[in-house]
Amino acid sequence: MTEPAWLSQVKWSDDGLVPAIAQDAKSGRVLMLAWMNAESLALSLAEGRAVYWSRSRGRLWRKGEESGHVQRLQEVRLDCDGDTLLLQVEQVGGIACHTGRESCFFSPLRGAAFVAADPVLKAAQEIYGKAGSAKPGSGVE
Amino acid sequence: MTEPAWLSQVKWSDDGLVPAIAQDAKSGRVLMLAWMNAESLALSLAEGRAVYWSRSRGRLWRKGEESGHVQRLQEVRLDCDGDTLLLQVEQVGGIACHTGRESCFFSPLRGAAFVAADPVLKAAQEIYGKAGSAKPGSGVE
Repeated sequence: MTEPAWLSQVKWSDDGLVPAIAQDAKSGRVLMLAWMNAESLALSLAEGRAVYWSRSRGRLWRKGEESGHVQRLQEVRLDCDGDTLLLQVEQVGGIACHTGRESCFFSPLRGAAFVAADPVLKAAQEIYGKAGSAKPGSGVE
Repeated sequence: MTEPAWLSQVKWSDDGLVPAIAQDAKSGRVLMLAWMNAESLALSLAEGRAVYWSRSRGRLWRKGEESGHVQRLQEVRLDCDGDTLLLQVEQVGGIACHTGRESCFFSPLRGAAFVAADPVLKAAQEIYGKAGSAKPGSGVE
């Protein structure tokens, strides 16, 4: 099979990954940064949804697989030096973060500390159920 | 001297860096991704402008130091797992990319390839002069 052109355009790091920024296509809000390898990018394109490589779990991570907060892919862009991706997504449920907030970037620097400032739209327990499969702090739902 | 709280909140990688996303505060456009270490973040806050760590040059990089395309810092946010920064900036000159484009993410995936689609607002030669200190492909001006 011929290697698709996009695959050779991306400058994967030594560990085969590049950072991928997800931006809400409607609001313009930057939602999160995660990582992709070639397989996860190919799957994202094939399935029309964001599929990342979870470094903490060491496996593919279909965003929303547990939370339902799928990211429908509208566009993928590569940066000038080919080592970062920007995804325009439709964020299902309006929640990207495992804490139940719209964006993972909910903590602006206020004085000498980063302080959580954005509202929790849905409690993590409500998102993931009482079994508690959420992994607080891991950034992986 | 007491270590500022923000310093210990950021989960620097083994090489002392975290990715920093710059977003245009006015247009909402994601401009670029670069890297910061603790010193560059402290300098960014102290100087009110984005100062990155250039991995290719192995030194601090005051964004705009050659091009004049300074990024005035309006806000810094940390993500939920503490390992990525989001900067809201005023992009002086309306150009973040060393290619003379507004954003480094100028190449959407079209079919099987990423294709440059955004206009060059100013030729690199005009930005950097005939001496040609631009480093095409390095992402560093």
